[in-house]
This record gives sequence, C-alpha cells and structure tokens, in this order.
Amino acid sequence: MTGADDPKPIAALMSLEEARARAQAVGTLCPVETYRVREAHARTLAEPIYARHNQPGADLSAMDGYAVKAADQWQAGDTAAVAFDIPAGTHTIPTLPARTAARILTGAPVPHGADTVVIQENVRLIGEGNDRSIIFQETPTPKWHIRKAGFDFETGKTLLEAGHRLTDRDLGLLAGSGHESVAVRAKPRVVILATGDEIMSPEKAVTPTAQADSNTPMIAAHLEKAGGQVVETAILKDKPDVIGKALEKALGADLIVTIGGASVGDRDYIPAALQSLGYSLDVWKIAMRPGKPMIVANATGKPLVHALPGNPVSAYICAYLITSLAIRALMGDAAPPLLKPIMAISTTAHKVNNHRAAFLRAHLGLTEGRLQITADPNQDSAKLTTLAYANALLYRPPHASAIPAGETVPCFPLGETFQDLTGTG
Amino acid sequence: MTGADDPKPIAALMSLEEARARAQAVGTLCPVETYRVREAHARTLAEPIYARHNQPGADLSAMDGYAVKAADQWQAGDTAAVAFDIPAGTHTIPTLPARTAARILTGAPVPHGADTVVIQENVRLIGEGNDRSIIFQETPTPKWHIRKAGFDFETGKTLLEAGHRLTDRDLGLLAGSGHESVAVRAKPRVVILATGDEIMSPEKAVTPTAQADSNTPMIAAHLEKAGGQVVETAILKDKPDVIGKALEKALGADLIVTIGGASVGDRDYIPAALQSLGYSLDVWKIAMRPGKPMIVANATGKPLVHALPGNPVSAYICAYLITSLAIRALMGDAAPPLLKPIMAISTTAHKVNNHRAAFLRAHLGLTEGRLQITADPNQDSAKLTTLAYANALLYRPPHASAIPAGETVPCFPLGETFQDLTGTG
Repeated sequence: MTGADDPKPIAALMSLEEARARAQAVGTLCPVETYRVREAHARTLAEPIYARHNQPGADLSAMDGYAVKAADQWQAGDTAAVAFDIPAGTHTIPTLPARTAARILTGAPVPHGADTVVIQENVRLIGEGNDRSIIFQETPTPKWHIRKAGFDFETGKTLLEAGHRLTDRDLGLLAGSGHESVAVRAKPRVVILATGDEIMSPEKAVTPTAQADSNTPMIAAHLEKAGGQVVETAILKDKPDVIGKALEKALGADLIVTIGGASVGDRDYIPAALQSLGYSLDVWKIAMRPGKPMIVANATGKPLVHALPGNPVSAYICAYLITSLAIRALMGDAAPPLLKPIMAISTTAHKVNNHRAAFLRAHLGLTEGRLQITADPNQDSAKLTTLAYANALLYRPPHASAIPAGETVPCFPLGETFQDLTGTG
Repeated sequence: MTGADDPKPIAALMSLEEARARAQAVGTLCPVETYRVREAHARTLAEPIYARHNQPGADLSAMDGYAVKAADQWQAGDTAAVAFDIPAGTHTIPTLPARTAARILTGAPVPHGADTVVIQENVRLIGEGNDRSIIFQETPTPKWHIRKAGFDFETGKTLLEAGHRLTDRDLGLLAGSGHESVAVRAKPRVVILATGDEIMSPEKAVTPTAQADSNTPMIAAHLEKAGGQVVETAILKDKPDVIGKALEKALGADLIVTIGGASVGDRDYIPAALQSLGYSLDVWKIAMRPGKPMIVANATGKPLVHALPGNPVSAYICAYLITSLAIRALMGDAAPPLLKPIMAISTTAHKVNNHRAAFLRAHLGLTEGRLQITADPNQDSAKLTTLAYANALLYRPPHASAIPAGETVPCFPLGETFQDLTGTG
C-alpha cells in the first residue's frame, strides 16, 4: 500500500478479531437436510453422531493365520490339526475343539474358545483338505492378532459432535458405525453481485479502460470451498435502481455478497439500497490492509449481506478472513473466531508496522521440513499476479516491530498450500 | 502394528518413493475440455495461459481523489480549479488543462497530461458543481496513486503453465487477463469396487460379524478431493465371476480402484481377474505401514487400476500417498513425486523404526505458531476412530532412530488441517 493511506484516527477502526466475531454472530442457520454419507463430504453435522453398533461386532482376527487357544500351551515345534476354516464373512461363530487350530482370515470372527491368532507366515502347513495340520515355528503369545469386540467404539458412543464439518475420514467413521445417511446443514445459497461501471465480463472488457470482472469467479470458488453454493452471479452498473432491483431479486438466498460500491466513493449506492430494503448496516473500517472497508448487513427474514471492497486482493482477503467464517456459521460450525497463524522464517526484512494488521501476499516453502516465507516485494493490492502466485499471507500484526531477515513471522497458508508443498492428496 | 508383522526379507519390499514414481508413470492422460473460468476451479490446465491484454489497459487511479500534473509544482495551501470529473468506467480519456485538477475515482483512467493523484482525504474541497476547487493540504509527490498501464502484466505474457492446477485466485487472474473460458483436463472418471464377503452397506451390516463398508464413502471423497469424479461404486462378494464381471463393466472409466482382495489371502481373486482381462500387474509390497500391499495394473486402451488393501486405514493412506498422485498425473499435473514432510515437535517419545516407513495417525496442533504433534497411542490399523480423529500423519522414516519427547519429527497434514488450525477459509 502507499504511504498516506490512512489519515483517520485509530479509534475509528475496528479490529479484525472484532469483525470476525461480529461476522459469526449474525445470519440465519441453514435448514437441516438428510444426505447419504457418500454425499456429505465437507458438510456440517446438524446433530451428534452416535455409534449404532459395537465396532467390531465380535472378536475378529487381525491377520490371515490360525486361531488357537493359549491355554493349550503350544510350543514351537508342536503340531495342531486344522479343525475347520473360518472365512471372513462367516455369520455363525463356531467353537474350537480342544488342542486344535482353525484356519482364519483377516476380519473373520475368532471361534469360541480361541483367543490367539498365529499368522500364516509363522507356521508350517502340512497335508491338504480335511487332513491339514500346522507346525508352530514360534510359541504363541496369548491375545496375538485379535481385535476385541467394541475395541474401536461401543454402541451409543458419541463419535462426532453437531457443528463438526465432515472430513473424508469422517465419512468412513459414519459408515463404519452404521450410518447410511446423515443430517447436515444445507449449503448456504450465495448470490454474488459485482458492481462498477468499469467492470465487464472478460470477453467484453476489450477497451484500455475496461476492467474484466476477476472477482466473481475467484470469490465464487473461494466461498464454495468454504461450504457455500453460489446460485447466481451478476455484474451491475453503478445505478441505484439497477442495484436495488438486483438486491431485491436476491432475497431468496442465504447470503448476498456484493463486491465494490460500498466505500466512501461518490457512486456507492449499495448502503442506501440495503437500507431501503429494511437492512441495518454494520459499516466496518477494519484495522487491516488490504481490505479495510466492509459492510455486514442483516434484516429479519432476509439473507445476510456481506459487502466486500471492489479491489480483487481486498475482496479475496475479506472473503478468506471474514466471509468464509460467516458461511461456516450459517452451517452451524461455531468454531471460535480465533485467527491462529503458523510461524515461518521470513527470508526478508520487514519495517515496523502501523496500527493496521497487514496481510502480505507471499510464497511459503518447505526446506528440510522448515517453513520459509518470502513476501512479494510489490504489494500493490491491484496486482492479480501477486495474489494468484501467492500461496500464503505473511501477517504483520498491528504495531509489529521491524525485523531483520531470518526472523520467524506469523503467516496464513492459502487453500491447498500444504497438500501442494508436501506432495500429498 | 504388532511385533512380528514382517518376517520377509527387506529386499522384497519397494520403497514408497519408487511406488509413487511408478504410480505417476502409467495411465492415459484425460481428454481436454473447455470450461467457463467460473467452473474450472481445481482443474488442471491443458495448455499455458497467455495474457490477452495489458493489465491495467491504461494508467489508472489507485484511489478516490484528484488527478493533477506534478510539473505544475503544487504546494500545500495552493488552490486548483476542478476542470471535470472522470468516473470509473469512462471510455474516452480526456486531457487535463494546465494548472487544474480532475476529480477521479478509483479505477478511472488518469487524464492525459496528469501523472499524480491526490487522495480526497488530503485536500479541502470548496464550491459546488462546475465551480469547485481543491486546496492542497500537502505537497503532491509525482506518480502518487497511479497504476501504470501493464504494471500487473502485459499482452502475451505467460501467466500460468500447462499442468498447473487452478486455485481460486488463479480464476481471478484468468478472468482478469481476458479469459472467459479455459482448456483443462477432464476429471478422471473413477469406479470404486469394494470386495469382501463380510463387507456390507451400513444398513445391512447388522450382525456382529458383518463389516459395514466404511471404505467406499471415505475413498470416494478423498479421490474427488484429489480431482477425480467417482461415477460408480459397488460392494462385491469374494467370487471370481462377480469380480470379473464388475471389472469388465468398469472398463469405460479412467481409473478403477478396488479395495480389498489383493493381498496373499486365500480368496484374493482380483489379480487373476485383471490378468484375464489382459492387464499386466505391478504387485507392490511397499516398505511402509500401514498399507503395505498394493497392485497397480495397466493395459493398453483400458483404465488404470489401483488395487488398495481392504483395511480402511491402509486403504486411506495408500489413496492419500499414491492414488491421489495418479489422479493428478491423469490430469496432466506431473509435479515431481517427492514427499516433503513438514517438521513438528513430537509431544511423545518414539522407538527406533524398522525398515518400513511408518505413518502414525496423529493430532497436529498450533501453540503460539509452533506445530506440535501427538501420535495416537493406539495405532491399530483397524481403528476408524483413530483415523477420523487424526488430522495429520506422523512420519517415521525407515530405520529412524529412537527419539525422546520434544524432538522435531516429520509429518504430513491431512486435507483441511491448516484451514481448521488457522481459522481461515
């Protein structure tokens, strides 16, 4: 940012923490919907999940091998007749005759009387068909390779809490605990309205002074990643009636996100349009850069409104730090709005910061497992390349001291950064 | 894992790095499709992206204020008449008369002759309408608040390379550089076949010995996160003809993922079924745990096959470390298959490791910006809870030395871990 960008008194600015807390506190919780577990990834639980059965339901073998009874006191070199086979998928659990062994596969129930599984690599099998025996290569230790009934979880146990956002692994736990479907919150339906006479769709923005609408696809993808469902987008001219009608048309959504037209410029018609629709406005000058001006508007029975600044970097950072949190709250995820940065070594020096939290577009890298971060030297908030090539934001808290290169600094990774850095799925 | 789990000679095992390199090397690149930028999030570019125009197209104002000419040598206290207004969205660029100012909004073109913008907070405006003047509160510095034409990028510049996976921010760059649509690779169509007589859908798995199919929803969600599109799933009985028919029916996909039935158990019919369909098999015993056995099968004109182990934790870790990489390769993302762990402080001691890389289910946390990791004390690979509650894998390389608590250890975050830890979108 440039030098003299904030001549107003500090008292007029809101802290980012305060803005995040307020963003979480308004809006109407989305309705409950039931989905097949397979379709519930990244949705938020509407109610706690209880185990419907013991897992496993019976004592099971953890390996392919032979089930025996420890009390039979087998020694290395002993021979045991194979009494029968227990394949995985057996529904009746047989009883093991004294001083015999049962052929058993991974996941099969341990026969009554048996309490130990010897893995197949550790015995020698002789004979065939109904005339098989095994010779122990080692002395079995009681309870080897047995998964006890209920050792993972028992019937009725609370496995996941309401408000939890389902990971891919959670889907395994849901299915494995007897759930075919699950009650989750609907995805908030989002309408995105980009405003500005100079803003055009990319194929129309052919004159030197036109500005292709870079915000809509970027903010839409970001809010969908946060859990929203973008149902409508539009580019609006800076005309009060155009803006008013578009807002009215969007009143069936759960969240309206406007981009541009909400600061102190001459043609910022959004605040007036919202007020005439009965909205009360929370007008924020957040102590951060980029992204200072933002409005959150609320009205009973109407969708929550976030009015983001029109500058693409400001819009993205407001969406990343504030609107994503609101989307989670609409889905019932009421995680505390704490921002918790991760520390990385800054490869460059930084000057003392003023009273506004700064989020510098930066590249985070891993060198021998250590995080290093390099802020882009050009932090102009109109640079789309700087934003696209960044994979993290280097955070300079309000009034942060000057630091030399090599110090650790707080930072925030963007999206897929860690999967990319670590080479994982 | 239990003690005597790998009596085979080390030479029989393949390194994880080797397995990842091989997984990337096979399979047929998915076809090219054209999507609107808005729909291209997380897809992989089929060709490089060039800027279609300069950005910005003309010198623009970075602030709301007044455009002046530095050569006029304005001083604090001087008064300049406002010659005209230049709103954002103006398509003709006017010329500024000598020793006047032009009212200008953010994003509007700087008039010919002007080279400096004074922000509105730093002048005093007197008069109205056509009779306005400004009084400078400070002496303007040349080039203040001007974004030069092409300062972000110039026409023809390569902005993104083929094979790059599009982030949300990239969509902003694509639209902002004149692209309405983009050529990307189709999502690999994935068929998932879970096998095992004991495996049932959750609502049918009501007997103590039945095993609800936890793998399918979990692996499906994971592979979709990696970029695939799961088009079909099925649970198959351990019968050669059932498995053969299901594989044949799946031959229209790009990737078939089988789960279970591919190790040395008595009923592992998948390898034979694949061979009778003309596949050549790459049978891996990877030097890792969990997740040792895996088959990658390939045949000209037929989908790539990954046969994952049936144990849910093993299946997930193989999908996370290996199959996700294959999906990216099918989409043309040929990032090197290097695994790059991130270091975290282990809150617990660890014993010396054997020759197999171990991936321990663990909880990663952030304390004052520092990563701390705690491995679950129970690492039984049948525990769904341990997997679901983990947000990272603690990595013990082959032959890693014993370490006390408090040492740093390598680890891999799972999915959304860092967005959750940092409270960001």
